[in-house]
Amino acid sequence: MDLTPAKGMRDFLPPEAARREHVVDTLKKAFKRYGFLPLETPVVERYEVLSSKFAGGEEILKETFRLQDQGKRELGLRYDLTVPMCRVLAGNTSLPKPFKRYQVAPVYRDGPLKTGRYREFVQCDVDTVGVSGVQAEAEQLALTAHVFFELGLKVTIKFNNRKLLNGVLEDAGISQEKHHGTLLALDKLSKIGENGVLEELEKDRGLEKKAAKHLLDVFMKAGSGEKALNALKKTAKSESGKQGLSELEQLVESLKAYGVKNAVFSPELSRGLNYYTGTVFEVFAKESEISSSLAAGGRYDDMIGNFSGKEKTPAVGISFGLDVIGEVLKEKSGSMPSPVQVFVVTVGDVQNDAIHVAESLRKSEVNVLLDLAGRGVSKNLSWASAQQIPFVVIVGEKEVRSGKFTLRDMASGKEKSLSLQGLALALGAKTD
Amino acid sequence: MDLTPAKGMRDFLPPEAARREHVVDTLKKAFKRYGFLPLETPVVERYEVLSSKFAGGEEILKETFRLQDQGKRELGLRYDLTVPMCRVLAGNTSLPKPFKRYQVAPVYRDGPLKTGRYREFVQCDVDTVGVSGVQAEAEQLALTAHVFFELGLKVTIKFNNRKLLNGVLEDAGISQEKHHGTLLALDKLSKIGENGVLEELEKDRGLEKKAAKHLLDVFMKAGSGEKALNALKKTAKSESGKQGLSELEQLVESLKAYGVKNAVFSPELSRGLNYYTGTVFEVFAKESEISSSLAAGGRYDDMIGNFSGKEKTPAVGISFGLDVIGEVLKEKSGSMPSPVQVFVVTVGDVQNDAIHVAESLRKSEVNVLLDLAGRGVSKNLSWASAQQIPFVVIVGEKEVRSGKFTLRDMASGKEKSLSLQGLALALGAKTD
Repeated sequence: MDLTPAKGMRDFLPPEAARREHVVDTLKKAFKRYGFLPLETPVVERYEVLSSKFAGGEEILKETFRLQDQGKRELGLRYDLTVPMCRVLAGNTSLPKPFKRYQVAPVYRDGPLKTGRYREFVQCDVDTVGVSGVQAEAEQLALTAHVFFELGLKVTIKFNNRKLLNGVLEDAGISQEKHHGTLLALDKLSKIGENGVLEELEKDRGLEKKAAKHLLDVFMKAGSGEKALNALKKTAKSESGKQGLSELEQLVESLKAYGVKNAVFSPELSRGLNYYTGTVFEVFAKESEISSSLAAGGRYDDMIGNFSGKEKTPAVGISFGLDVIGEVLKEKSGSMPSPVQVFVVTVGDVQNDAIHVAESLRKSEVNVLLDLAGRGVSKNLSWASAQQIPFVVIVGEKEVRSGKFTLRDMASGKEKSLSLQGLALALGAKTD
Repeated sequence: MDLTPAKGMRDFLPPEAARREHVVDTLKKAFKRYGFLPLETPVVERYEVLSSKFAGGEEILKETFRLQDQGKRELGLRYDLTVPMCRVLAGNTSLPKPFKRYQVAPVYRDGPLKTGRYREFVQCDVDTVGVSGVQAEAEQLALTAHVFFELGLKVTIKFNNRKLLNGVLEDAGISQEKHHGTLLALDKLSKIGENGVLEELEKDRGLEKKAAKHLLDVFMKAGSGEKALNALKKTAKSESGKQGLSELEQLVESLKAYGVKNAVFSPELSRGLNYYTGTVFEVFAKESEISSSLAAGGRYDDMIGNFSGKEKTPAVGISFGLDVIGEVLKEKSGSMPSPVQVFVVTVGDVQNDAIHVAESLRKSEVNVLLDLAGRGVSKNLSWASAQQIPFVVIVGEKEVRSGKFTLRDMASGKEKSLSLQGLALALGAKTD
């Protein structure tokens, strides 16, 4: 029998799973700190919901895992967490707004496998539903800055506004139906360079050379940050462009109030997805080989209303990528220390005394692994070292008699003889 | 469009989802405290693995959701977390033992729906693989006692030993092939009473009246606890029975060393599943209307070896039921307070000052909801009350000028005027 996971699926063994759990815990703690609450929806949805006209769209539907229950109901595995949230909101109209929820859960795509693409991956989503002003965006960017600070990662948060982009395109005389393709091409500026984008705009997106050049000039000259904002203000003519700039200015002001210093206005950022209606943002690691974004999102004011067929419901969301955040953390700090803080081992027939030591440390909130196999000390020390457990406590007959136990620091090899209380203190336990 | 979840699936809206997350967090913290580490496996498994002869068995396979990927590979949604763990252990033979892992994740069963049965439910599993002595069981029962203490729930942990049960049946002259059915009937003693069990043993399980009566006498007279252990020691004849009693005595001794006082030997407990080979245990709530068990498990020394076709690998596991634990908590304490500790609201044009107050409290590790909608104070107070947020801070122009902010206790309606530091202290923040 083949014992590997199914194609595109992954197992995460303990050291890696512990790192992922650390990231998830940090994210959830930050989400709660900013007043977001959890929502749980099932992995299995009715296919009717997943394939709704206003749900994820044609491309994603092709990659949807389909199945039936015993009653022959048509079902599918969710491909994102946004569509299920829209279903919940549309089906529970009495839910109080603003509705601020987070959900950290796996989603499924039966697509081709490339590097970094899997058929099951965890999305970490935060959405603010029912707030039309940029206060919602500002809060999510402050939350984002907080998350990466807590994770110890330096990042740049790029933001832009779809209304501004549409305005610039309008001013350049590019017709509405070419906007989406044009934005997709412009989004590649950092990847394929000015000439690459020019070529794509002319050849694939049907722009005239002059319009394409003008557009690129606007973005290249503008640069980024407040300078770019001021430059664009001077040239913007369309209502849409002016509205976008006004929202960006308000956002910049709010971000100052939040003390967010690593967010920067980036006029070339457009984000591929078609459903964004205002602010868009994307987060990149500084000082990293990894160029994929760590988180991304934006405002989508039409989707929920379209989905429910009811009133327009403004919304802003950001999604953090667990896989890529994990990769950047690994690149930065290598393997993670074990969640086990100390390994309690025995010499001789003192198992009940070792239990007493282990339980005493656990009461002081120390994570303790107790030797259950009764191996010898040297075997146990090698084990602790292989498992990257930082400390070992040795319990023998002499130690039990004296009430002093040997604490070995596995990094330095240094040993101390300590009372139970001394052990707890040395292991950094809470002892109030 | 039907906006309800698919049949047998559930949404958990924020107050309920927050309670579930609280239980999961408490469990994971306890698992780590006892040296267990996380393992992640995918929801989608190869059908070959799920349908393996030594996996979950015929009955469970009938309830397995089946699907195919685009490459027509036969897949299924996992129906438990044990079979995937066995696959991982069999496929990664170099994983160091003892292997102590936990996994908290949803599983899927496409079965008939009854009260309390769903097609997606979360299992919270802890397993110790590679320890043959009862130290593994003792540790898991100590962990179990710790978990329910942390959750604030009073429970009884019942335990027994399959070897003892088999021995008693052997001594009563009941043939091997009738053991499983006999144990299933005996397990119902508390549910259908002595006469009910007698009838089932004779009619459905094919026991002679004399043997059935003798058996019941043994269990009824034995009672429970150490007295029962001593009584059974006097009558046990078979090797299996003696072995079971010896393991039980060692377990009782270890539980004393752990200071576990709510675990009791219960000779009538057998647990339905066929794969247990030694100790079995099951946890029930005290002072509750809910009679379903909150957690259950036992030793299964053959399953992993059978599954991998390699050497015998001893294992002990316990599974905590998230749904039923949530129900008992709800029964005990009603709705849960919001994870949001304080709601910061504004009077007048002071949004940036309110941001400053909110961020200052967040830095002190307070969970803060900030008003993003700019509603009036009285609307916001009603909102806080409906959302069960315990405190509200009011930020107005006067407050900004004086640096003193109004803190309202929503339960008592009392208000205080406090500095930023005073607010943090009053909200129980960490301010070192």
